[in-house]
Amino acid sequence: MRVLGVDPGLTRCGVGVVEGVPGRPCRLVHYEVVTSDPDTDLAHRLLNLDERLTALVAEHRPESVAVERVFSQHNVRTVMGTAQAGAVAILVAARAGLPVQTYTPSEVKAAVSGNGSADKAQVTAMVTRLLRLQVAPRPADAADALALAICHVWRGGTRDRIQAALRRAR
Amino acid sequence: MRVLGVDPGLTRCGVGVVEGVPGRPCRLVHYEVVTSDPDTDLAHRLLNLDERLTALVAEHRPESVAVERVFSQHNVRTVMGTAQAGAVAILVAARAGLPVQTYTPSEVKAAVSGNGSADKAQVTAMVTRLLRLQVAPRPADAADALALAICHVWRGGTRDRIQAALRRAR
Repeated sequence: MRVLGVDPGLTRCGVGVVEGVPGRPCRLVHYEVVTSDPDTDLAHRLLNLDERLTALVAEHRPESVAVERVFSQHNVRTVMGTAQAGAVAILVAARAGLPVQTYTPSEVKAAVSGNGSADKAQVTAMVTRLLRLQVAPRPADAADALALAICHVWRGGTRDRIQAALRRAR
Repeated sequence: MRVLGVDPGLTRCGVGVVEGVPGRPCRLVHYEVVTSDPDTDLAHRLLNLDERLTALVAEHRPESVAVERVFSQHNVRTVMGTAQAGAVAILVAARAGLPVQTYTPSEVKAAVSGNGSADKAQVTAMVTRLLRLQVAPRPADAADALALAICHVWRGGTRDRIQAALRRAR
């Protein structure tokens, strides 16, 4: 199963693609960070993200997309941008007909490190080890996106399959 | 100038199209509320909104789009849905190459009623009078979207023109 993980953000949006099956180490396919200048207007920032994510889906052809679920306890200004970037990521997946799953940060941390409150350095270290990389993926947004994708592969895409079955039934 | 106003919401998204020039009464072109079932998954709700707004832009060919700016003081759960729906509206406009402007609720209320803290009933009454309608637009989400569009026409689209000039310069 090939999964595209997205750690949404307006200024820096982490994207990671991995391939694997539940319970086995995953293989790194691609990672990058889509950036946008906070000084440009919101419409152009969202459009840029939409275009880049659409291109990445076309290029890497994931079977499903995992997006970090935005949380309320964060700073409200950040949450707004994260919610907007997350909406773009979910929309790109839906337009491509791909199932989308959201995960909370602690679900992702628990999946890759066994500890739901692991810090960024621990997540990066685990992602590096799990993907058997020589060099740690940088910046942390990219490592987080890869962790999301690994988390989704290991969860076995169960919810994806349920969603797909429900869609066919409708 | 023809303007499409959007009062973003995931469950109910108000849309209103008006035509006019600054300082004169506007003419109603269209209004509706795009709804989605809170029990369906987020991806389908965002996709449905994207498709419907894209169709409305194609049908009514506005020259610019006005979207209500989401606010932090609201309930956090609501804010997330509003931010996501707002992102879709802004993205639809940007994809169509249209300038987008956001307004705060109090800017809109002040523009149509002279009172930045007018209530929903007052806004609906003013929109009904300003568009010379026989029947008040319902529900309130539609009236809010029309108020946004009127506000943008009356502001003369100044910021639109500045944005367009900047875009040409880049």
